Amino acid sequence: MDLKSRNSCFGGTQEVWSHASSATGTDMTFGLFLPSEAKDGPVPVLWYLSGLTCTHENAMTKAGAQAWAAEQGIALVFPDTSPRGAGVPDDAAFDLGQGAGFYLDATEEPWAKNFRMRDYVLNELPALLFGTFALDAERQSITGHSMGGHGALVLAMTAPERFLSVSAFAPICNPTQSEWGQKQFAAYLGEADKKVWMQNDATLLMADRGFDGPMLIDTGTEDQFLDLLMPEALASAIAKRRQQAIFRMQQGYDHSYFFVSTFIEEHIAFHAEALYA
Amino acid sequence: MDLKSRNSCFGGTQEVWSHASSATGTDMTFGLFLPSEAKDGPVPVLWYLSGLTCTHENAMTKAGAQAWAAEQGIALVFPDTSPRGAGVPDDAAFDLGQGAGFYLDATEEPWAKNFRMRDYVLNELPALLFGTFALDAERQSITGHSMGGHGALVLAMTAPERFLSVSAFAPICNPTQSEWGQKQFAAYLGEADKKVWMQNDATLLMADRGFDGPMLIDTGTEDQFLDLLMPEALASAIAKRRQQAIFRMQQGYDHSYFFVSTFIEEHIAFHAEALYA
Repeated sequence: MDLKSRNSCFGGTQEVWSHASSATGTDMTFGLFLPSEAKDGPVPVLWYLSGLTCTHENAMTKAGAQAWAAEQGIALVFPDTSPRGAGVPDDAAFDLGQGAGFYLDATEEPWAKNFRMRDYVLNELPALLFGTFALDAERQSITGHSMGGHGALVLAMTAPERFLSVSAFAPICNPTQSEWGQKQFAAYLGEADKKVWMQNDATLLMADRGFDGPMLIDTGTEDQFLDLLMPEALASAIAKRRQQAIFRMQQGYDHSYFFVSTFIEEHIAFHAEALYA
Repeated sequence: MDLKSRNSCFGGTQEVWSHASSATGTDMTFGLFLPSEAKDGPVPVLWYLSGLTCTHENAMTKAGAQAWAAEQGIALVFPDTSPRGAGVPDDAAFDLGQGAGFYLDATEEPWAKNFRMRDYVLNELPALLFGTFALDAERQSITGHSMGGHGALVLAMTAPERFLSVSAFAPICNPTQSEWGQKQFAAYLGEADKKVWMQNDATLLMADRGFDGPMLIDTGTEDQFLDLLMPEALASAIAKRRQQAIFRMQQGYDHSYFFVSTFIEEHIAFHAEALYA
């Protein structure tokens, strides 16, 4: 692993690392915030999955998460949103290819070789992190924004043994029914087996299995992408399942990081309750 | 004035405006955070002056200031660091010309026509702001980072009736003795009259007059630009003058926004004490 940068931040350190990934066949870069408590032993971990077009860097610099993670003694991991590089397939659209990995494992060409973000985030990166840093694998939670909020919900419901709590900011909720989903699933997963699509749709997973732990979802009433996010579908599925959840529509907020930064304190406090239970 | 964006943020709004400036002869863009209290009447204002290469946007998205300004009911103004545009003089170096206005009024060609950031920040922009928004002109304080920290110190000491308190993050302290200063002052102010240089040097102004109010200065011990910032010169001048001040070297922190975001809460609380006294 190569240390790209290390900055003191709220008594801990904000680090950026890159490493060769066997999951994606590329170099991958991630951000890691370690609170000061990590000097004394393993600390809990909150995964933050970012949205379309983001790298490891956006949330790390704009979400204001470190203030609250430092207060709670929680580490933050900021993975990239896809493999990148000259040899990696891409698409002219901002919502397909590089920067738009959707946290799934592609099965279709030309994406199948590199676009394995589920495997990367769920298997390879944790093995690397827990083998290297003072992080407690028994205390993990996950959150994310937009495409990353959807990723957080899907990973939590399909790897429930891994996460004690899940939250999301303005998540894509029902991608099999949205232009943010249908296009990407068709490209990455093909159209032959729609059952695979269901395994990657937060609303369908909620209907099918839910999550055995606390869940917090915030979406702004002025979000410019509400028609694509479809929070009503997830809210309905949560209610039908009687899923333990806090689902909030936040008056006046939009899709930006100004929305994320406003509520990140509450999300981190929410996860801290589960991580320190 | 043109509203470029408005985002709900911590119960208030983060706005970006642009307007034709007679001071600079260009369009200028600024960020403005209005806390929710501004709906009910004029609120105090904290000016944030940014550093080299920054626009109005950097601190607005990366400093994490809105959380604490909202808590204190204080508005934040984020001016740009220079005039910009195709017709505006520039230099190939990052530290001269566009993005490097140094918050002074240039007298030398080709800069004199547009590079009038002192006039813009001290006169034109306040007139515009206090005539348009629910801001209290009687309650203003000023802070900034690096070149902007220097700007905050110089403006506070040379327009003391305007500001109730001043703070700075990693300010350039003694530009007449530093490569961050000599080069720019020679270009913008010329070499004929070094007295004009003195009016734009925080350490020399401290020796000459100081500031009749509280002052807070934070600099990281691992700041990669310490040799250019020269905090020791300002610290010495503060002590010699018996200036009311808190001067801190923060262990382990560098020049980045991770440093600014770590201490912005304390700076805003510091200004709130003066603004609400």
